[in-house]
Amino acid sequence: MAHSIGSSRTASGFLAVKALFFDVFGTLVDWRGGVASQAEAILTPFGYALDWLAFADAWRGEYQTGMEEVRSGRIPFSKLDVIHRRNLDRILPRFGLEGAPEDALTALNLAWHRLPAWPDAARGLAKLREAYILAPMSNGNISLLVDLARHNDFVFDAIFGAEFAGDYKPKPGVYLKAAAALDLPPSACLMVATHSSDLAAAAACGLRTAHIARPDEFGTGGAGEARPLVPVDLAAAGIGDLARRLGLASR
Amino acid sequence: MAHSIGSSRTASGFLAVKALFFDVFGTLVDWRGGVASQAEAILTPFGYALDWLAFADAWRGEYQTGMEEVRSGRIPFSKLDVIHRRNLDRILPRFGLEGAPEDALTALNLAWHRLPAWPDAARGLAKLREAYILAPMSNGNISLLVDLARHNDFVFDAIFGAEFAGDYKPKPGVYLKAAAALDLPPSACLMVATHSSDLAAAAACGLRTAHIARPDEFGTGGAGEARPLVPVDLAAAGIGDLARRLGLASR
Repeated sequence: MAHSIGSSRTASGFLAVKALFFDVFGTLVDWRGGVASQAEAILTPFGYALDWLAFADAWRGEYQTGMEEVRSGRIPFSKLDVIHRRNLDRILPRFGLEGAPEDALTALNLAWHRLPAWPDAARGLAKLREAYILAPMSNGNISLLVDLARHNDFVFDAIFGAEFAGDYKPKPGVYLKAAAALDLPPSACLMVATHSSDLAAAAACGLRTAHIARPDEFGTGGAGEARPLVPVDLAAAGIGDLARRLGLASR
Repeated sequence: MAHSIGSSRTASGFLAVKALFFDVFGTLVDWRGGVASQAEAILTPFGYALDWLAFADAWRGEYQTGMEEVRSGRIPFSKLDVIHRRNLDRILPRFGLEGAPEDALTALNLAWHRLPAWPDAARGLAKLREAYILAPMSNGNISLLVDLARHNDFVFDAIFGAEFAGDYKPKPGVYLKAAAALDLPPSACLMVATHSSDLAAAAACGLRTAHIARPDEFGTGGAGEARPLVPVDLAAAGIGDLARRLGLASR
């Protein structure tokens, strides 16, 4: 049974927290390695040989621009799969991929549905779920998050984020609609992410915050956050470490 | 790993089905016994002695009327917890409960979050999840469904239904928005319910349908459906039997 919430095992100060919301890309899964390896597997048979990590970085580099069109109201809400595909089309010429077959590009766009988890994620989530309601709070669309969870053996209690709210993080409504759906005040929700900007936005809405160190999110020596750049309630080295810091003993 | 979807184990004719949507009240959980026993536990200490099953029946008897106010557009969407509370207040005089303390009524309204599963439900769902994406397709709100799932060890991949769609079954948008969120055509979705009206509405939207026999939903000799009253794709005696009929061997 996984429904003992807010038990006495919970670290003092976090007794009021009932739900944990997780950023996904970078925090739970390795988008950079996953996109690079799948791009290589899908495009190599067609004779392409790229710097696959640079390709992943370039695709992700268009991410905020694509979502900003929705956040600003310039275009109606579009699910992230649609934005990912538009961003992919935008970078194709940069990598000489304009002639890649449509089937391959369709498959490539689904690489984001099959990203590999960081090694501590699945076990850490299972431990946390013994005491908390868990949900992704991601800009990924629902089908993407369902596929990622099944691919990596993550078990969530609900799916919140962009498609549920009809807008993209860091807009306040994305965080607040999730808390409201659970009948919880924001202060009973803990936002878990490796990106300080996400945590700052959640904190501004009244959520508690936990930072996860992912120094290698953008590769060794890249811009990955080894520590939070803003004040947070907790800082952890990984999802299992977060469980320990919340007073849940490791199995 | 629970992500082999549409495998060769699936019964022929259902190879295209990727997602199973479940009605919850009556199909997966025993609302009548659950409401009656919790009402007894909550109200007896205050000196009330009712026909608890009649009380459960009366409360559920207001269900369609409450939702019809939303479906017809007379009132904006309200989550089922709100409708349940309004319906409870409506029947209080009938049972001499006008003087019951507010705390008790608040707790009583949450009885719907803690209904017991039918004995075959949790194990059957776990078996089905080996091959299919599972989600409730219920008029219950998200917090209610999260609590019910955790209380009964149900694991779902997403939560669809009224709160996700902003309307109540059997309105077509409730079924169709769920299929669209999974990037699936309606024909790749199987609606599972013990209520023929729900199955007829889903079929009209192009979903496949499976009936679950729950002859005792309204008590022995009551109006529970032992067999479908409309044409369906499958009829099963329970959730485990549904898994077997879909070609998944029992553990």
